[in-house]
Amino acid sequence: MDQDLSTRILHAVDDLFDREIDFLAELTSHPSTRGQEQSAQDFIAGELGERGLSVDRWRIDVQAIRDQPGFSPVIGDYEDAQNVVGTHRSRTGQGRSLILNGHVDVVPAGPADMWDRPAFAPHVDDGWLYGRGAGDMKAGLASNLFALDALRALDLQPAADVFYQSVVEEECTGNGALACLVRGYRAEAALIPEPFEEALVSEQLGVIWAQVHLKGLPTHVAYAGSGANAIEAAVPLIAALHGLEERWNQADCPHRHGGYVHAHHPINLNIGKIQGGDWTSSVPAWCVFDMRIAIYPGQDIAAARAEIEEVILQAARENAFLKNALPEIVWHGFMAEGYALSDDRSARAGAAIGALEGAHRATTGQALERKAITATTDARFFGLYSDTPALVYGPRAEAIHGFNERVELESLRRITAATALFIADWCGTETI
Amino acid sequence: MDQDLSTRILHAVDDLFDREIDFLAELTSHPSTRGQEQSAQDFIAGELGERGLSVDRWRIDVQAIRDQPGFSPVIGDYEDAQNVVGTHRSRTGQGRSLILNGHVDVVPAGPADMWDRPAFAPHVDDGWLYGRGAGDMKAGLASNLFALDALRALDLQPAADVFYQSVVEEECTGNGALACLVRGYRAEAALIPEPFEEALVSEQLGVIWAQVHLKGLPTHVAYAGSGANAIEAAVPLIAALHGLEERWNQADCPHRHGGYVHAHHPINLNIGKIQGGDWTSSVPAWCVFDMRIAIYPGQDIAAARAEIEEVILQAARENAFLKNALPEIVWHGFMAEGYALSDDRSARAGAAIGALEGAHRATTGQALERKAITATTDARFFGLYSDTPALVYGPRAEAIHGFNERVELESLRRITAATALFIADWCGTETI
Repeated sequence: MDQDLSTRILHAVDDLFDREIDFLAELTSHPSTRGQEQSAQDFIAGELGERGLSVDRWRIDVQAIRDQPGFSPVIGDYEDAQNVVGTHRSRTGQGRSLILNGHVDVVPAGPADMWDRPAFAPHVDDGWLYGRGAGDMKAGLASNLFALDALRALDLQPAADVFYQSVVEEECTGNGALACLVRGYRAEAALIPEPFEEALVSEQLGVIWAQVHLKGLPTHVAYAGSGANAIEAAVPLIAALHGLEERWNQADCPHRHGGYVHAHHPINLNIGKIQGGDWTSSVPAWCVFDMRIAIYPGQDIAAARAEIEEVILQAARENAFLKNALPEIVWHGFMAEGYALSDDRSARAGAAIGALEGAHRATTGQALERKAITATTDARFFGLYSDTPALVYGPRAEAIHGFNERVELESLRRITAATALFIADWCGTETI
Repeated sequence: MDQDLSTRILHAVDDLFDREIDFLAELTSHPSTRGQEQSAQDFIAGELGERGLSVDRWRIDVQAIRDQPGFSPVIGDYEDAQNVVGTHRSRTGQGRSLILNGHVDVVPAGPADMWDRPAFAPHVDDGWLYGRGAGDMKAGLASNLFALDALRALDLQPAADVFYQSVVEEECTGNGALACLVRGYRAEAALIPEPFEEALVSEQLGVIWAQVHLKGLPTHVAYAGSGANAIEAAVPLIAALHGLEERWNQADCPHRHGGYVHAHHPINLNIGKIQGGDWTSSVPAWCVFDMRIAIYPGQDIAAARAEIEEVILQAARENAFLKNALPEIVWHGFMAEGYALSDDRSARAGAAIGALEGAHRATTGQALERKAITATTDARFFGLYSDTPALVYGPRAEAIHGFNERVELESLRRITAATALFIADWCGTETI
């Protein structure tokens, strides 16, 4: 790309940045927790249509995806799960096609009183935009869109097909991204601006969710010795799961992927939800807890699942009460493999990474840092199941999944600029 | 009481027993969990009215009872909390007055699938009547009523005022019984047929409820090391509370009341409810658990409460995360002192116990067994706060607060008979 075009693109991003912030604030104001994404998708579909993209909006069909690799089990149907894809068709088709992917679903805000300002009333303060989902990852949906806008402001467009995807279900299954694959959306590379501090994600972990149901024989607490407390029965199971977590974190764990050789504690177990009992003076009959644990890229997911199950059941068999009432394990939500872009030795992956490196350096003056992350992203669907190198590269954010979540606006500006430069390089440009 | 009257009363109880079972079954079919007692109270008020008792039904006024000894703190008002009292006024007033007390509130049934038959569809099988509340303590409301009916079948009535009380709030505060006191209902003895296997309760424990609120600083689980898991933060607090439980159970615990000298483990801690977190892959920001612990008769309740608080806060201060976010302890529900009938050396208590001993022996041919129970009952209000000996004496039941709760019908028949004989002795009889 010539220096002049590069400079003009950077200026165009700057010129549009106030509008990009407005877009991000409006998008963040939609409380698009799982099942509630409709108004946010309405907003995005409208913005895509205004820009002349061809808009495809559809409800995810569980039947169509359930036998595909990467599918995660779900309870219930997907009545409320809609993806939106805006398609740009190149006039000349000279460049390489691209998927710009982002997820519109956000995790719950948690107790309102722990936020300084309401979670879905975004505001800007001292260079940061605050709100649930601002960083994870509505900022990425903004940068993907305004990168295209910057080209358009120069009367340019990508010289290859580009698919702008706004998907749901990223925070619990990834089935939104999977549904895009099954619907036929393919390209020669994918970019996902998840908020990992302007680094390129070289490796990501897999994630498994499980729900553990314990049942006890309740009684009046006056006879507590003869009843089993289902809430307290969860404690040794959680301890046993932490034992598994520690084994997987050991330096010599056979599953440990090369990208995590120097990581201190990449595998995190989280007990994310618990509920049990219905009366303070009744020994609780039941307790349900939800767990999340990570696995390494390349770690066999069926084997990992079997190991989790065995750890839970073994701990239960060693427990005086639980051995007679073994817990029921319900698998719904993430059944996600890890993914390592670094393992993709293809020329196409090398070219895509090289293009991003150039764009990043042109924007920031710095080399592109690699990062092995301890979470998962939708990148696995492109990388593992459709032979598409997936570049996860997004802005700096803080307190994602926490309170007062925020994204740094100057970081967003740089990501938008680098994305525009990457598109211009990877896809090439043509006049509108 | 002459032998002939005694025999006629026993026959009258037998003659009415099928109707008593029908009454108990209908009462048990009302799902009178806390706040839902209205239809059960409608039914009881109707039955009292049909028998010519003067019916008093009123909503508990928190303002009127909150400064009384024995009051337990509550959240919200008592819009839905109604007591029913049916009053019999003696024509001659020759005998000793009596309160026949029972509670109509029942604890939640828990998961339906753990019952063999629906919890509020009572049925009789092999001599037992099944259903939530059948034993605790609708059988007692039946025996109190049908004991009076047996006298009436002989054209007799008590020769003293008798107050038939159907109260709410026994399972969480006792404020229903307290409201009866404040409304002016007093008598020379009280009988409460709680289901303790035809024994006389000589001592009962006090009970304290507390709700412990934990808050964490949640984050994406990928960074779990920097977030505090509010659910797991509960574990060391629960362990510390079990430490307190063990100290109070030690043989040399200074609080241990004489009635519990030989009891193996009278003080039970129960973690009865827990709820925390809202997303499996977010480190949970909050967790709330509800605890119940017992105290001995004579143990100072303010000191016990302070000790519980200190145990929780000390465990929190020793925890890396919690020391910076000390738990909030909400006291609502039981703040109930223990009560020992055995400590009441008054002539009146001796006379009441003697009358019950005679009635029990005439019914069963056995001596009346004493029992120190590990629960609380409303007896404390009569015994501690209105100088009225309170006899807790009721039928054999199983799985109270559990699944497939049931009461033994022959036991109920004996309790009804003994109650009728006791009334005839304590109050005397007069012709209608």
